[in-house]
Amino acid sequence: MSRRYAILAPEHFARDAKTAHGVIAYSHDVTVAVIDPACAGARVCDAVPYLRSDAPIVASVREALAFAPTALLIGTAPKGGALPAPWRAAILEAIGAGLEIVSGLHDMLGDDAEFAAAATARGVRIWDVRKPPQTPIFSGAVYAVSAPTVLFVGNDCAVGKMTVALELARAAERAHARAAFVPTGQTGIMIAGWGTAIDRVIADFAPGATEQLVLQAARQRPDVIFVEGQGAINHPAYAPVTLALMYGAAPDALVLVCDPARAHIESYATPTLAYRELIRIHEALLATVKPARVVGIALNTRRLDDDAARAAIAHAREATHLPVDDVVRFGADGLYAAIAPCLRKGAPCAV
Amino acid sequence: MSRRYAILAPEHFARDAKTAHGVIAYSHDVTVAVIDPACAGARVCDAVPYLRSDAPIVASVREALAFAPTALLIGTAPKGGALPAPWRAAILEAIGAGLEIVSGLHDMLGDDAEFAAAATARGVRIWDVRKPPQTPIFSGAVYAVSAPTVLFVGNDCAVGKMTVALELARAAERAHARAAFVPTGQTGIMIAGWGTAIDRVIADFAPGATEQLVLQAARQRPDVIFVEGQGAINHPAYAPVTLALMYGAAPDALVLVCDPARAHIESYATPTLAYRELIRIHEALLATVKPARVVGIALNTRRLDDDAARAAIAHAREATHLPVDDVVRFGADGLYAAIAPCLRKGAPCAV
Repeated sequence: MSRRYAILAPEHFARDAKTAHGVIAYSHDVTVAVIDPACAGARVCDAVPYLRSDAPIVASVREALAFAPTALLIGTAPKGGALPAPWRAAILEAIGAGLEIVSGLHDMLGDDAEFAAAATARGVRIWDVRKPPQTPIFSGAVYAVSAPTVLFVGNDCAVGKMTVALELARAAERAHARAAFVPTGQTGIMIAGWGTAIDRVIADFAPGATEQLVLQAARQRPDVIFVEGQGAINHPAYAPVTLALMYGAAPDALVLVCDPARAHIESYATPTLAYRELIRIHEALLATVKPARVVGIALNTRRLDDDAARAAIAHAREATHLPVDDVVRFGADGLYAAIAPCLRKGAPCAV
Repeated sequence: MSRRYAILAPEHFARDAKTAHGVIAYSHDVTVAVIDPACAGARVCDAVPYLRSDAPIVASVREALAFAPTALLIGTAPKGGALPAPWRAAILEAIGAGLEIVSGLHDMLGDDAEFAAAATARGVRIWDVRKPPQTPIFSGAVYAVSAPTVLFVGNDCAVGKMTVALELARAAERAHARAAFVPTGQTGIMIAGWGTAIDRVIADFAPGATEQLVLQAARQRPDVIFVEGQGAINHPAYAPVTLALMYGAAPDALVLVCDPARAHIESYATPTLAYRELIRIHEALLATVKPARVVGIALNTRRLDDDAARAAIAHAREATHLPVDDVVRFGADGLYAAIAPCLRKGAPCAV
């Protein structure tokens, strides 16, 4: 049964509420209201133009209840980790109103004594999507998966790896290929309704948890498997998660997702890698483990105008001799058609 | 106060009880008995010649109690993870006798209801050395550490990275340099009495946990910091931990530790990397994050005779033009002297 979401994103909805935006754009669940006093009164599409939703933005849980939500989704992460008092009050009010609580925070709301007691008393579920299952150590069973597997890697966090995977999966379906999307982070899990937040898995088990996801997707006998990427290979904090996905998913092909305007890893002084260096380091790491080639590049040109976007795409093509496009700005059918011939087991894709 | 260990290593002591061997060789705590029915009656140095200990090997906890241990150390991991019934009985018997329990297993013995109840009733401590502390996300504070930091990387797990770090730390002390050893795995923690098992940390926090360890070591104002390595960069299951150490410790120099006889990653079909490829991939990964060079190679030639060991060392020297030695077979002073000039912040070590 699909949910009707009220999304809690105080002070952040119009700015950087990545989870909220992803769920509104791609989930089968409906968003009936967004809670953010900073832009209350506007509609979603006013605050974030690329989201084609006219759901209302309201100032409080009480106002959101008028739109008959069935669940409260935490749509952004509080700064510093600890839950601010107004958030706590909002969550308790939603529980009191009988709403399911859906959270992708590192801190498990279900482990909070106050929330747990309130949820039990009211008979509502707290879904901590980031809570990982127990999984075995990586076994290598994934090497026998027959569907070609594509992993999305990029030049930083939050450049659109999940979005590109979802758009290419839709393009594959339009081309009559059955595509499986494998969610590896909290927003992807909320959108697809299953998956594991690999960044939350104990380091020793992260490749094994990724392998289990791909094996689970393979059981549906898809024609192609698209694995959501995380982090970046030279990200000082999150690269281990990137590498866990590379070895655990054992992809047959990689798609690079890059924001060409990103000169540094967000929040760090580390420079982002150039296209050719990104290709070289990912392919070198996989070479002895499970060889795979980069078969295409998806650019996130959101901060550029159309001409600058076309120039950035032409530059990336020239530098790499690979198919390059912005699948949000120009649609995903072109890039999908260009990489589809490479999406066969052991396809000898010339690069 | 130092411990008197009885080490539980049933059926494994003479073979592959890595934790038991490391603690006997390097801990300041004394091992008074080993429990392994498979070689009961022998002494430690009979079963494992390179361990210069004449502690008795006995068949049961009851027999071990005759040697007045103060703690039972779990010296090997059971196959498959679950605790076999005889181990459980042995641990309960040790708790009943008032012994502290020291365990590096993934499963936390202190979280086991039966062990926890028995330990509380008897007033003994269960030290699960692999239980990680809560740590922040990687911050970059480690970049300001003034002591040169050396990280040990290798061509596989269990090739001697910890041993080489400990031997070079001793060589540094003999050369009147104050060396800090940073433990990142269960055996290192048991030996040094502090540290964090990075493989047990949630993936997102693994570089941050490593950073905290180096910051803690730096507070003692050592002349050099040696960080215990883990895994291997092309290990299908454990490479994310290797990468977490590389980015989290932010080393100034790397020492490669290799078993030249290891053609494949243990338990996997993945081939090990050749010296030059190992150097290239580690240096390429660090290049934009925190540049560091490989400054020397320590070979584990245990399976070779003296002549073959010398030939392997000569071959590695020729292939890499780096200082190479086996610090266990030939002592660590030579390799330490060779790499010491490179152990300065920003040292322009010619390679």
